[in-house]
Amino acid sequence: MSLALGDGAEPGAIRDRDQNARTVPSDTVIGLIDVAIVGAGTAGLAALREVRKHTEDFLLVHDGPLGTTCARVGCMPSKALVAAANAFHTGGKLETFGIRGGDKLTADIPAVLRRVRALRDQFVAGVLEATQELGSRIAAGKARLNGQNRLIVGRQTIEARQIVLAPGSSPIVPEPLRALGDRILTSDTLFEQDDLPRRIGVIGLGAIGVEIAQALARIGVEVHAFDGAARIAGLSDEKVARKASGFLAREFAIQLGVEVELADTDGCIEIRSGDNRVRVDKVVAAMGRRPNIAGLGLETLGAPLDKRGMPEVDPQTMRIGDTAVLLAGDANGDRPLLHEASDEGHIAGLNATSSKPISLSRRTPLAVVFSDPEIAVVGRRLSELDLDQSLVGEADFASQGRARIMQENRGLLRIYAARRNGRLLGAEMAAPAAEHIAHLLALAIGQNLSVHELLRMPFYHPTLEEGLRRALRQIARDLPPCSISDLAGCGPLNIESLE
Amino acid sequence: MSLALGDGAEPGAIRDRDQNARTVPSDTVIGLIDVAIVGAGTAGLAALREVRKHTEDFLLVHDGPLGTTCARVGCMPSKALVAAANAFHTGGKLETFGIRGGDKLTADIPAVLRRVRALRDQFVAGVLEATQELGSRIAAGKARLNGQNRLIVGRQTIEARQIVLAPGSSPIVPEPLRALGDRILTSDTLFEQDDLPRRIGVIGLGAIGVEIAQALARIGVEVHAFDGAARIAGLSDEKVARKASGFLAREFAIQLGVEVELADTDGCIEIRSGDNRVRVDKVVAAMGRRPNIAGLGLETLGAPLDKRGMPEVDPQTMRIGDTAVLLAGDANGDRPLLHEASDEGHIAGLNATSSKPISLSRRTPLAVVFSDPEIAVVGRRLSELDLDQSLVGEADFASQGRARIMQENRGLLRIYAARRNGRLLGAEMAAPAAEHIAHLLALAIGQNLSVHELLRMPFYHPTLEEGLRRALRQIARDLPPCSISDLAGCGPLNIESLE
Repeated sequence: MSLALGDGAEPGAIRDRDQNARTVPSDTVIGLIDVAIVGAGTAGLAALREVRKHTEDFLLVHDGPLGTTCARVGCMPSKALVAAANAFHTGGKLETFGIRGGDKLTADIPAVLRRVRALRDQFVAGVLEATQELGSRIAAGKARLNGQNRLIVGRQTIEARQIVLAPGSSPIVPEPLRALGDRILTSDTLFEQDDLPRRIGVIGLGAIGVEIAQALARIGVEVHAFDGAARIAGLSDEKVARKASGFLAREFAIQLGVEVELADTDGCIEIRSGDNRVRVDKVVAAMGRRPNIAGLGLETLGAPLDKRGMPEVDPQTMRIGDTAVLLAGDANGDRPLLHEASDEGHIAGLNATSSKPISLSRRTPLAVVFSDPEIAVVGRRLSELDLDQSLVGEADFASQGRARIMQENRGLLRIYAARRNGRLLGAEMAAPAAEHIAHLLALAIGQNLSVHELLRMPFYHPTLEEGLRRALRQIARDLPPCSISDLAGCGPLNIESLE
Repeated sequence: MSLALGDGAEPGAIRDRDQNARTVPSDTVIGLIDVAIVGAGTAGLAALREVRKHTEDFLLVHDGPLGTTCARVGCMPSKALVAAANAFHTGGKLETFGIRGGDKLTADIPAVLRRVRALRDQFVAGVLEATQELGSRIAAGKARLNGQNRLIVGRQTIEARQIVLAPGSSPIVPEPLRALGDRILTSDTLFEQDDLPRRIGVIGLGAIGVEIAQALARIGVEVHAFDGAARIAGLSDEKVARKASGFLAREFAIQLGVEVELADTDGCIEIRSGDNRVRVDKVVAAMGRRPNIAGLGLETLGAPLDKRGMPEVDPQTMRIGDTAVLLAGDANGDRPLLHEASDEGHIAGLNATSSKPISLSRRTPLAVVFSDPEIAVVGRRLSELDLDQSLVGEADFASQGRARIMQENRGLLRIYAARRNGRLLGAEMAAPAAEHIAHLLALAIGQNLSVHELLRMPFYHPTLEEGLRRALRQIARDLPPCSISDLAGCGPLNIESLE
């Protein structure tokens, strides 16, 4: 039986054009459809797009409000908050530029948050368009597997040839923190606040924690941030990580490598780390996100699960073992980034509608933290490299010309190349325009370019990319001479490269 | 005879360690040195760096104060002014972000200009380090060729095996404008002003005129800008050019495709174009730069000169015909950009010290205008393409997610690819972060990548590079299908590409 619109089938209770479809109320069995997709986030919608190129015989099941994590609580509202915070922070540089009155600027935090939500609503509305007109082919409710071809949603059973699971992830809030009720914020609730208290603790300094902590500090909140690790924002290069946390520590209090305990004291939250005690009004838990696999019934597939209950997923097909089930997006715990979730949905959708496995290669790793300076990791991180076989080139932005002009002259870029042939391997950085430099490096790494080949491109003056060139040249000096000049390519002349 | 320091030769009057060496006063003949370099700007200094890898038997002759055009009157002070102007302009966006008080900001123009000069002085000081310790091997004075192995500087004659000419360029100020005296400004004098008048005319909207006009408007000057051409900033793509001038026209008055006349009227300057009359206090002449070849004695080389007096220069060796003379940098009238001048000096220096010609390939063309939005041209411009053989992809930034978040959502990017195989050929754009997107495209074009290959790279979310992806996808749709997915590369599957 098909649920396709207009085919005369009785769509029953799952027909609902509202944004939040009703939970399926009856004991129906719907079978056998081509593809069921669980989750209408980025991965689920990407899977849907592929599936619809091949069949209209699908069902999309979603739990909770429509709209992706990215649009609703992730990338977009956080970047909107960061943009406002950075604009206000720039006020502190105006005097040096010769602009007067920067000291009179004030952040109207309720107004800042209203704009964040207004933009968020627009981005969510954009996402909702993807699920309009689905009619009976979209259903609300929590889905649970019952074997590899069967989903249970409420009292309804759906039989499907292939099932794409893309249920997403949720912020981790350990039990002791939950006791503090609505004084514990996460990215799910922060942007919903009408106003912010004077003091906020941020627990966790991964990408999300770093962006939120700096943005809150920049709009005037007293921020105290903590992380159990010694390095922030996913950096593995000690030198870059130290620089990055040093930059942030000029703006708010940071303690790294500490365990914290929270206590409800005198109406506020006391954060204890070793002998240190600090009181805040609210705490943002930014301790990572956990795949939404609880109650998903993965154990009914017969595929082995690890101790966290996670099955093994082929990253090139998104398939769980040799089952009819694919697991894509944040929910598989691998590469929880928007563009990767989109790819994974795409791959899962292709495989769900193909009679043969389609193994696709994945993109060059790229992760960006929208702090100031921005933090980025591209290709292989330092910790993944054999240091004996690698060369490191670095550029400090403290005296970089363009960065000085813009009062953005702080940052460190470190790039890694193979000692054997100068191929670029990866980079870590906390630097101005890191998001752009990282894209350039991602292209170069994906194309297997060498340092010499990259030095053949034009570097306009004055740009921040000239900082990248400095790091490339440092590596080039340590490589066997390749030609008389960058402009000659790597020919037979064997004279040192352009300096 | 060598002028190398410490070789016991009598250096005579040209020994001078001061920043501005004295003009050579005697009737000395110095000969025969290995290389004479005329001009201590970017090209001259790049040539010097190469020459010194092979010989210390050189003489560097410079006319006027040391310090490059870029550092003294070009890239650096203009970017410093632009940075201040943009910071002030951003004040107008603060209210929307939820930041109060932006309407109280004021530009202290004398302070803005003081910072410009202070930065300029630092950048010039950096350049001066390159010519310290040259002792008798640097001389001040205007050099004139007398045949291909002889230079006359004042009353001194220098014989040299090879001569690198890099005398630079100067702003064009037509004779009628000169009559207006110091009310006509150029990039040579603008940054020297203690203050600026209320109204300024800008004649010429190439890269320099656009940057200056917008920056002046943004710090509160009433700007009236004019250009004889219909398209600004070196753009050839009508659609991009129209957008770009449209953005600028919201900030200051622009008239394109007009001839202007200036008249000294009632103590101010009246600019007349057709029936239009507008009065300003000063005028910035931004009508281009002219190679400093007058009096250089190029006619003594025996090589053919065109009607402007310019010889033909091989862009891969910088040599004039088969003479012993090389012409590098702005002075040869080709690619008057810092990074190209640096390359040309490098190429000239290599060839001046090599027994055989060294022909070097040039970089992918790249030009950036630091307006807001930035304007960039990379690779081949639209006017250089066979439209029948090309595909165009475009992205408008009006509704681009990241651009909206940052209130930078205006811009147009157009990229060009070969219809036959999807190879990227070039791009023109007026878009946020154009300087970065243009570097990415320059790498891709230089590496002969196709649209499909570029679509294989990661595009992080939310970034402005996603705008580029949109333009790439538009071209991909018009190309023969290449594979099942971006992630598969261009294989044999022959199904449509990832959307």
